[in-house]
Amino acid sequence: MATVTILGAGDMGFAISTPVSANGHDVRLWGTPIDAEIIETLRAGGVHPRMGTAVRPGVRLFSPDEAAAAVEGADIVLFAVTSVGIRPIVEQFAAKLLHVPVIMTIAKGFDPGPDGDAILLLPEVIAERTSSPIVGVGGPSKANEVARGIPTGIVFGGPGEAAEFCADAFRTPAYNVEVTDDIVGVEVAAAMKNAYAIALGVSDGLEKATGVPHHNFRAALFPRAVQEMGKLAEALGGRAETVAGRPGAGDLQVTISSGRNRLLGERIGAGEPGPQAAAALREAGITVEGYDALGFGHRLARSLEDPATGHPLRLPLLEALYAVLHEGAPAAEALWSAV
Amino acid sequence: MATVTILGAGDMGFAISTPVSANGHDVRLWGTPIDAEIIETLRAGGVHPRMGTAVRPGVRLFSPDEAAAAVEGADIVLFAVTSVGIRPIVEQFAAKLLHVPVIMTIAKGFDPGPDGDAILLLPEVIAERTSSPIVGVGGPSKANEVARGIPTGIVFGGPGEAAEFCADAFRTPAYNVEVTDDIVGVEVAAAMKNAYAIALGVSDGLEKATGVPHHNFRAALFPRAVQEMGKLAEALGGRAETVAGRPGAGDLQVTISSGRNRLLGERIGAGEPGPQAAAALREAGITVEGYDALGFGHRLARSLEDPATGHPLRLPLLEALYAVLHEGAPAAEALWSAV
Repeated sequence: MATVTILGAGDMGFAISTPVSANGHDVRLWGTPIDAEIIETLRAGGVHPRMGTAVRPGVRLFSPDEAAAAVEGADIVLFAVTSVGIRPIVEQFAAKLLHVPVIMTIAKGFDPGPDGDAILLLPEVIAERTSSPIVGVGGPSKANEVARGIPTGIVFGGPGEAAEFCADAFRTPAYNVEVTDDIVGVEVAAAMKNAYAIALGVSDGLEKATGVPHHNFRAALFPRAVQEMGKLAEALGGRAETVAGRPGAGDLQVTISSGRNRLLGERIGAGEPGPQAAAALREAGITVEGYDALGFGHRLARSLEDPATGHPLRLPLLEALYAVLHEGAPAAEALWSAV
Repeated sequence: MATVTILGAGDMGFAISTPVSANGHDVRLWGTPIDAEIIETLRAGGVHPRMGTAVRPGVRLFSPDEAAAAVEGADIVLFAVTSVGIRPIVEQFAAKLLHVPVIMTIAKGFDPGPDGDAILLLPEVIAERTSSPIVGVGGPSKANEVARGIPTGIVFGGPGEAAEFCADAFRTPAYNVEVTDDIVGVEVAAAMKNAYAIALGVSDGLEKATGVPHHNFRAALFPRAVQEMGKLAEALGGRAETVAGRPGAGDLQVTISSGRNRLLGERIGAGEPGPQAAAALREAGITVEGYDALGFGHRLARSLEDPATGHPLRLPLLEALYAVLHEGAPAAEALWSAV
């Protein structure tokens, strides 16, 4: 039996406690200050406010001020916070991370570095503070389904032995875990699929605006998006093959079926200029992860070479999406020109 | 200006007359005996009964008994009939096909050969009767959207010069044509995506039966389906890379959003045994293309080697789907075991 500490009791942190607790492990779910009320509700026997299910047997709850106890002696510590939450939580636990055998992250996105001008994958942020092996999680994984034990197939990416150790801890009949050593491919896809989901969501807005479905439009963008994520992964030392599997094609498929990224695309497709639609969601307090990922990914791509050609990396669909969201380019025309 | 004859005035034959006529070509739309009423309706100025739009300017209509005039002097003859219609229509036009510069097919599926025991890709059936170059069409292409000029991105697969000639004839701002020499990859994906769409449709039935979305389930099957189509293409001399693009990943993406293949999967996922659900649709006169493609593809796979290993080709998801539809295996369990 392993001791597994999950840092973050938001949607995904709570959800992933389902498979690992089903395996009989000692699971500790720690709430960040943002999750304080969630922990209280769960302790009182209530259901998670967004996931709608109660905490599973075998999961012990830790409130924000019980951080030290939560990680004490853990075999695996899993970061399940937002991308902007990674750096402060890593800092908070820095002294403890040195001694954790394996660290996992299910957070998706990029980090701007301590000075705000870098573009780091989230495992790189964790690696600043520990030399323990790090395992990243990717693949199509709606949290509410994971929480309910609906069949879910994901990928753990990291050094062989560590990734296998984590896979053994989390794998259940309903939670199907593949393992890869290509953590770069997993993390690039996990972050960038949110950006591309905005582009594909535009088709829903075009349907709204015209009364005619634009399914062909969306489906033509789909393989292009997967291809570009693969190129970005390759330029960073990962593999396109990883992206073509669960973390890229699989996760993009589920991401375009609902969610905030798709919603932003829908508003733009329906006629709202990109910068205005993005600002409206921001002002409504709605974080669109793909919007930030687009900014990072766009800047990152401009700094890289295509390893196949030695020329600057060209990702036309990402460029077009950037033009739509940051320069107000007309969405249908701009995206279609990059298909 | 080229003369382009489309054989078949069903959904796709009618639809594809939109882009090619927009380019100012002499387009002839010939109705098979099944399409006789459609041709009459269109001639009288009515709309296509299923597509809902009228015939485009520049498209001349030919009734079933005007077959000879329809193909006389054509630069391109395009087969737009069902897979079971290919062989009889090829036979009907056999003498003329010898003299057609380029032949295209947008039909999707397999042919059992003259004796019923073969497994042929549809271009192979055409090639029995002509040595003219043959170009196959694949990619996400809902006919009603193509008919309306909604942006659509597809692939023409065939010998370089012929494929480029066809692409030039059909390409418009809204009808984006890629070209590949990998007609095997295009045709395998075009046929098999219908079979795999049944498997992915099971997720909709599981949602119906349980009240809980099974999006993760569907999305986990998605890259596996694309991977298996790629392996089948490779075993036949095609390329997985082709399948990962528009003809496979792209077309599967659109095929699971609606249609009969998805519907069959939904019924099975909701609890109806596979053989029973297939029989019910058959008795209702509803042809499920993916059901036939599954039978052919399953038999084909069993006869092939995996070129990467030299061992018999293994396609676990296709095997599982076959067990569900032909042996009544429980759908969720069988498919999930192959993920």
